[in-house]
Amino acid sequence: MAKQFFDRMIYGGDYNPGQWPEEMWKEDMRIFRKGYINSATINVFSWARLQPSEAVYDFTELDKIMNMLEKENYDIVMGTSTAALPAWLSRKYPDVNRTDFYGREHKFGHRHNHCPNSPSFQRFARDLVLRIAERYGNHSNLKVWHISNEYSGECYCDNCAKEFRVWLQKKYTTIEAVNEAWNMEFWGHTLYDFDDIVPPSYLGDGISDTMTAFAGIAVDYRRFQSDSLLDNFKMERDAIRKFDPETPVTTNMMGAYKGLDYFKWAKEMDIVSWDNYPSYEPDWAHTSFNHDLMRGMKDGQSFMLMEQTPSQQNWQPYNALKPPGRMRVQSYHAIARGADSIQFFQLRRSKGGCEKFHGAVIGHVGHENTRVFREVAQLGAELEQLEDKLIGATTPAQVGILFDWDNYWALEYTSGPNVDLYYVEQIQKYYHAFYKKNVAVDILHMDSDFEKYDVVIAPVLYMVKEGITEKIESFVSKGGSFLTTFMSGIVDQSDNVHLGGYPGPLRKLMGVWVEEIDALAPGATNEIRRVDEKLTKENYTGSLVSDLIHLEGAEAYAVYDSNFYAGMPVVTRNSFGEGSAWYVGTVPEAELLDDIVNLILDEKNIKGFGDYPEGIEITKRMKDEKEYIFVLNHYDDTVEIETSFVGYKDILTGEKIEAVTKLSPFDVKILSID
Amino acid sequence: MAKQFFDRMIYGGDYNPGQWPEEMWKEDMRIFRKGYINSATINVFSWARLQPSEAVYDFTELDKIMNMLEKENYDIVMGTSTAALPAWLSRKYPDVNRTDFYGREHKFGHRHNHCPNSPSFQRFARDLVLRIAERYGNHSNLKVWHISNEYSGECYCDNCAKEFRVWLQKKYTTIEAVNEAWNMEFWGHTLYDFDDIVPPSYLGDGISDTMTAFAGIAVDYRRFQSDSLLDNFKMERDAIRKFDPETPVTTNMMGAYKGLDYFKWAKEMDIVSWDNYPSYEPDWAHTSFNHDLMRGMKDGQSFMLMEQTPSQQNWQPYNALKPPGRMRVQSYHAIARGADSIQFFQLRRSKGGCEKFHGAVIGHVGHENTRVFREVAQLGAELEQLEDKLIGATTPAQVGILFDWDNYWALEYTSGPNVDLYYVEQIQKYYHAFYKKNVAVDILHMDSDFEKYDVVIAPVLYMVKEGITEKIESFVSKGGSFLTTFMSGIVDQSDNVHLGGYPGPLRKLMGVWVEEIDALAPGATNEIRRVDEKLTKENYTGSLVSDLIHLEGAEAYAVYDSNFYAGMPVVTRNSFGEGSAWYVGTVPEAELLDDIVNLILDEKNIKGFGDYPEGIEITKRMKDEKEYIFVLNHYDDTVEIETSFVGYKDILTGEKIEAVTKLSPFDVKILSID
Amino acid sequence: MAKQFFDRMIYGGDYNPGQWPEEMWKEDMRIFRKGYINSATINVFSWARLQPSEAVYDFTELDKIMNMLEKENYDIVMGTSTAALPAWLSRKYPDVNRTDFYGREHKFGHRHNHCPNSPSFQRFARDLVLRIAERYGNHSNLKVWHISNEYSGECYCDNCAKEFRVWLQKKYTTIEAVNEAWNMEFWGHTLYDFDDIVPPSYLGDGISDTMTAFAGIAVDYRRFQSDSLLDNFKMERDAIRKFDPETPVTTNMMGAYKGLDYFKWAKEMDIVSWDNYPSYEPDWAHTSFNHDLMRGMKDGQSFMLMEQTPSQQNWQPYNALKPPGRMRVQSYHAIARGADSIQFFQLRRSKGGCEKFHGAVIGHVGHENTRVFREVAQLGAELEQLEDKLIGATTPAQVGILFDWDNYWALEYTSGPNVDLYYVEQIQKYYHAFYKKNVAVDILHMDSDFEKYDVVIAPVLYMVKEGITEKIESFVSKGGSFLTTFMSGIVDQSDNVHLGGYPGPLRKLMGVWVEEIDALAPGATNEIRRVDEKLTKENYTGSLVSDLIHLEGAEAYAVYDSNFYAGMPVVTRNSFGEGSAWYVGTVPEAELLDDIVNLILDEKNIKGFGDYPEGIEITKRMKDEKEYIFVLNHYDDTVEIETSFVGYKDILTGEKIEAVTKLSPFDVKILSID
Repeated sequence: MAKQFFDRMIYGGDYNPGQWPEEMWKEDMRIFRKGYINSATINVFSWARLQPSEAVYDFTELDKIMNMLEKENYDIVMGTSTAALPAWLSRKYPDVNRTDFYGREHKFGHRHNHCPNSPSFQRFARDLVLRIAERYGNHSNLKVWHISNEYSGECYCDNCAKEFRVWLQKKYTTIEAVNEAWNMEFWGHTLYDFDDIVPPSYLGDGISDTMTAFAGIAVDYRRFQSDSLLDNFKMERDAIRKFDPETPVTTNMMGAYKGLDYFKWAKEMDIVSWDNYPSYEPDWAHTSFNHDLMRGMKDGQSFMLMEQTPSQQNWQPYNALKPPGRMRVQSYHAIARGADSIQFFQLRRSKGGCEKFHGAVIGHVGHENTRVFREVAQLGAELEQLEDKLIGATTPAQVGILFDWDNYWALEYTSGPNVDLYYVEQIQKYYHAFYKKNVAVDILHMDSDFEKYDVVIAPVLYMVKEGITEKIESFVSKGGSFLTTFMSGIVDQSDNVHLGGYPGPLRKLMGVWVEEIDALAPGATNEIRRVDEKLTKENYTGSLVSDLIHLEGAEAYAVYDSNFYAGMPVVTRNSFGEGSAWYVGTVPEAELLDDIVNLILDEKNIKGFGDYPEGIEITKRMKDEKEYIFVLNHYDDTVEIETSFVGYKDILTGEKIEAVTKLSPFDVKILSID
Repeated sequence: MAKQFFDRMIYGGDYNPGQWPEEMWKEDMRIFRKGYINSATINVFSWARLQPSEAVYDFTELDKIMNMLEKENYDIVMGTSTAALPAWLSRKYPDVNRTDFYGREHKFGHRHNHCPNSPSFQRFARDLVLRIAERYGNHSNLKVWHISNEYSGECYCDNCAKEFRVWLQKKYTTIEAVNEAWNMEFWGHTLYDFDDIVPPSYLGDGISDTMTAFAGIAVDYRRFQSDSLLDNFKMERDAIRKFDPETPVTTNMMGAYKGLDYFKWAKEMDIVSWDNYPSYEPDWAHTSFNHDLMRGMKDGQSFMLMEQTPSQQNWQPYNALKPPGRMRVQSYHAIARGADSIQFFQLRRSKGGCEKFHGAVIGHVGHENTRVFREVAQLGAELEQLEDKLIGATTPAQVGILFDWDNYWALEYTSGPNVDLYYVEQIQKYYHAFYKKNVAVDILHMDSDFEKYDVVIAPVLYMVKEGITEKIESFVSKGGSFLTTFMSGIVDQSDNVHLGGYPGPLRKLMGVWVEEIDALAPGATNEIRRVDEKLTKENYTGSLVSDLIHLEGAEAYAVYDSNFYAGMPVVTRNSFGEGSAWYVGTVPEAELLDDIVNLILDEKNIKGFGDYPEGIEITKRMKDEKEYIFVLNHYDDTVEIETSFVGYKDILTGEKIEAVTKLSPFDVKILSID
Repeated sequence: MAKQFFDRMIYGGDYNPGQWPEEMWKEDMRIFRKGYINSATINVFSWARLQPSEAVYDFTELDKIMNMLEKENYDIVMGTSTAALPAWLSRKYPDVNRTDFYGREHKFGHRHNHCPNSPSFQRFARDLVLRIAERYGNHSNLKVWHISNEYSGECYCDNCAKEFRVWLQKKYTTIEAVNEAWNMEFWGHTLYDFDDIVPPSYLGDGISDTMTAFAGIAVDYRRFQSDSLLDNFKMERDAIRKFDPETPVTTNMMGAYKGLDYFKWAKEMDIVSWDNYPSYEPDWAHTSFNHDLMRGMKDGQSFMLMEQTPSQQNWQPYNALKPPGRMRVQSYHAIARGADSIQFFQLRRSKGGCEKFHGAVIGHVGHENTRVFREVAQLGAELEQLEDKLIGATTPAQVGILFDWDNYWALEYTSGPNVDLYYVEQIQKYYHAFYKKNVAVDILHMDSDFEKYDVVIAPVLYMVKEGITEKIESFVSKGGSFLTTFMSGIVDQSDNVHLGGYPGPLRKLMGVWVEEIDALAPGATNEIRRVDEKLTKENYTGSLVSDLIHLEGAEAYAVYDSNFYAGMPVVTRNSFGEGSAWYVGTVPEAELLDDIVNLILDEKNIKGFGDYPEGIEITKRMKDEKEYIFVLNHYDDTVEIETSFVGYKDILTGEKIEAVTKLSPFDVKILSID
């Protein structure tokens, strides 16, 4: 049932020939061919080139580029060129520029810089995309439309203020409903007119990215801004669809980027794509999470790796080289978790501008006799050999972890109890426990079908919106195992507390009442003592936050052993229908978290691929009922591991797998049975 | 002679029924009764509710609330509702909004947000308060008027600039006098017209809260802003007085809040009140200082504890719970040092807005079966039993410590010698030395009657205004012991140096000349060697600042023992008339400070209640010639202490005191003789 | 051939009698005479005094001051009084005020506050300076014109934007050339009109002082702002020249201040002067570098020490006193490296304003009986005794270190590879290696005559502008030793990469190709192994950045011994013509750097004065073929050193030098042969 958008693994990246004299393009083609490059992403930042002034359009250069790439039979990823404003537009129609959180009106500069609610932006962008779609929409080598680029940022200008009021009127109808939603009687903020509403910038009720006087306003403004940019996306997509009804449309995401509700966005996209830039100190679980999140965007559908660097970045504080082999394993890492493409930013390194030290397939030296190019070519040859074997393959998973931008925003805006409480960090703590055991996990959204899973994990499920309680209760009552934690069930969709005792609507399901929530300063911990012998150690610790829990039907697996609430439960399990509901009232140390996760996996009899030395990662993709087992070694060491894959063959090398397998540094094996 | 404003200990707090459906109010009353709540602070943030638009006033809800509370015989603390602007007012009359230090004009948002010099604010606020006073001023349950709320913040708008010039013209009459006061010939800043004057924002001569190009301007601007908000207060008070000539008027202070010259404010208030929010790492000496400062506001008159949290705060980085007993001891701590009320923020926890996790008497669970409520009720019962025994009681003290906002501001604006020199920190170092010995201290202002005291301590008396030298000399010559330190006697009221050698006008009294002032970087210390054997150790250290002192009549008690000024005096005593003047030329380590304080206490034969283990605090209040000795244990440990209170009885429990008394964790005893 | 501007060592400093009543001036003269003060810098901040309003000028006070100083036979350093705007000018002509990086329009305040492109500033400043020059230009005691004061800061107002476009049009002629220079096709920034250009403030392409989206724009804006202020300087100088064709003109510099291209400025000045304010933790090599930089400004011409403090500063975080003797050795330190004057800020300590705690010759006590004054007087007597012996003396050096503001700016704007890479720090690392050996170094600029030197060191020569490669190649081919490092030869004058392989145009000369550039996070190091036995150790480490080097004719002296590039060269030497070209591909640990420097000194047979204990510094000045050897002890310890100066005499004391010489704390000897 998986969609297959491509016939071959897309292998290429951002290509900006307009930065170079035309005579160099031929050399590009020659070198790329040696590197097995079969695709290019073009026209991402070309607005100023395509439209030199208000009345003039000029497609000469783009025509030439298209022509050349088609001759070379490239799969073309076509940008819409709206990712940066032309200078003349910024100057003549200043409403296209953003006003920042501090109320400063910006001028021409940078990229990702347009106000989403600017009428001028909307008009000019739409006109341009219509022309591009009309001109290139029927080209057979055009494989994907790539709208704008890395949508991000916020605007607080007067146009946004106006549209915010319109958005609110649609959502709430009356000003009384707005007052109720934002609890505006607090601090006497009662509004009598939609015109009273001020965007929560620093000049209004905002304080910072994670602080606000009214979380209700701030969360709604984030929703509104995410929707505003999404409207821009939809406007461009619809313009494309006037001339090209079929070619899949995407825009490139950025993992768990806070600013946009990507699950809402994904619904409007045909295929998801994203840009993977791990830190100079790579954390592979973190990257795995991001890949899984992207695969979760469209409920398991494979995605494009739109950008990665072949070697070095430039905008991190310390831009270490990728040692030989790391780029390759990192590419297969993406494929192992759902990618159908490997694309680089960029194909030729720019000679000026702020990314001139960003890695590229062709460096400043200008030829192919470089380590980096040789690694690109080696990988290209392998991918060509894989043909479409893995395109559209899927990843079976019995465990789902819930991720939700509304919760992300609301939890981090809330004042108290602990300023060090970050949403993604808490989610990833649980993700990591499964990752270490090589258990496949899907990242779920609120509309996901929970009942396809045996286990659903929902850490810090702070905001429980309408219908969610019922959905979880149904999942558990039918036999599912559910886990949530401290700071769950606290507020409704407007950030108003669910009255009647924490965890609010989840209280019945979890079988606990949380009377108080303590906060621990950095370095402080609470002692924890096991009650249930299935926990492997007698004593653990917890930190950050400590719920003071009363059992209301649940059973305690561990209790506090310090502080005035020593003896009160901290880890509990409630039988509910045919399933179980686990509650973890603190941030458990890693060993306690591992033990809890083991209990849950055991109760659902879920086996991962097992525990291996750090850096070894094993995952599976399926296509046409055939298994592909990915065995990756992320580290620069040789390791021998025992596996159960005797009888499998590595499709990259043909090597037959024995009981004990040796993995060389940065090794990759893709195992299958003929 | 102490004033007694109340018949019973006021026990209640902020009550915002407008945030809740009316049917819940009855439940509030039921629960509060169980908690011995006898008072409510209402109408603090109700402007938007009372005046939904420019021409419309609506007192329906407030009438109902008053009516209900009167039926329940509550002591009502009546807000004036001007603590937050209505949104419509911000929008229609933008001059009510503030312009911040960086010149940004703010819009509607937060609270404490009005420009004090806004004509619109002044007009609308006065109109409203007149109506409130007329309507409710004669209610018999109305016990206190509470104007606005936690006045704070600054404004740098054009209206403020205009009024600043008027304020300066009143103060200085001529522009030449302004130039002289601010030493404007420096850097060629000479002004020729009052219109040349620019508020010291970041766009003018300001740099930050503690840095400025011209301390004279910056200090005057602080005085002006403090006066401007005080004018707002007086305007509301005078509006009240048109209809209610008698009910005491207050506004809630915030300890040693830097922005307002509270001593000047206190003169305009009938009763002082303040909000006590200790850090999540409580420092009891610090809180004691704040209580004493509040008691000092009106020269020993008891005050109201207007706000504290029953359990948790929300706006600190780490909002730890108060363990069982801590709220109680903290409440008695306030009473022990002069409070006649115990009030909470707030009575029912809000369900939304940025303080939804702030502790309250009734939590989100909505009922009274909580630990926090039980502790509230226990304390309530005790306070009811105390009746008016302690209301208006006074605290006898022989030691005074001088505190002065002009000094606070000027010292911290001064560039050099050491950026780590903070006013309150230096004052509290000396306060702490007395605190540890349980010696009662009054906090004095410049107009206090020094001659009521045996000892006056004035650390970092940087700014010596007119008349102060004579006042101190008179105090000493009549037998008083006076102490001051490095960075004293430096400048006059305009921050111009007293020429002729430091410590300027105090040079004769102190009998020393300070030739140079060295600054020590963090971690650096100077060795100190005792000269006088009454000091208990041979060697000490000093840090931060080191005066290079020449004796001019004084006697050295200790000298430096390192650096190129080894051998020069650092602690000196000058006999002057019948008294003594002590000078401490550095920040002494704690043991040296203790020794100096002991010498002074000894020379005046002052005995405190003695040294006890950390966390034990003993104080006294007097009423109708009866002594009440408070014995508090701030810590979660059981301690046995020896006291001299044999024969006393604990009025809370009736327990008779033996020579050895056991204090349980967080214990409180109030000892008296029948 | 050295110019001699003065007959005697100028000894004085900033004198602001306008801040004091006239009756005090006589006392000033009496005291200064005792201190051997022979000079005063006046009229620096007097604009508001000289021109009380638009139409009125008043020179009465300045006439009196001149008159008095001439009577006392002072050498007068005459300010032009434009260093701070009058308040009335700021108010009436707001275009004189600056707009800051964040777009905030400033009002009257501080100093160094005028917009360089303000037509009003230019008109009023010129008018004033013409009058001053006409009135005082022919006074015989006038020895130096001192224009404005410590020029610094940037402006981003609309006038600057306009003038920036004019400046660019002059430089580039066409908008296409601008696009090419700034590589504006990157991120689609192509401009079609000069009016499209926006200054790189935070509202445009700027991010911070060291971050920008387009280094080309940012570097050009720095050049433009430096030129704009220089135009102000030239305007004032030319106004002076209308009436005074001869008196030398200066303005005071601030060492390696980033904002201004001082080498370009120095060409417009007759004599260089600078203000020396070492940190409270003095680093004498750093100060030596600054003195040498100042001496390099006009290719070895001696300079003025325009400002230092006799004792204490006020604007550092911790303003330690200078212990007895330190001010003296610090003064001779300046003379030893090229100063012909010792001047203090200031002669009398101000009583108000933000520098009231800044050290001065006369303190607040107002008399001369102070330690600080005694040290001033002692030094004054010595300088008087030196007469003009050292005035205009020169410093012979065989080693030059290249310093260049374009490189400073461009290197620090570049995004990647390592955020901790700072220009001056890298230059000073090499400077320090020579300093420790007491080898004289000249600081060179791009136009310096390299061929006067045996060795030229050019660390991080990131930007290689037109003609530079040829110049260095010529220097080496004729026998010179040249050294450069990682991050050299990377970009052209517009910050566009020299394509074809790093180090670009230097590749042939250096005989290496740098394929990749690795970045190391803080704390990380690479092992290094020697290849050439002339290195003293077998193993070293390197940090920050690591070039991956291929030899193309050069010889490896050391190779990496860790990371995937172990075995690749890191220190290389290429024979080129009759000379050698050294390349250092990382930041070497100090011992490796010392060894490299030793190899280079050895190959050119250069001897310094040798290695001495830390804090001992030996330098030479020459005049009329006579040597003056300065032996300084910067530290508070007595040291015995062996020297080769037997037969020399200390001209300060007449002491004859033996083979072993004893240096007392902070000692200074000036050795010469009769």
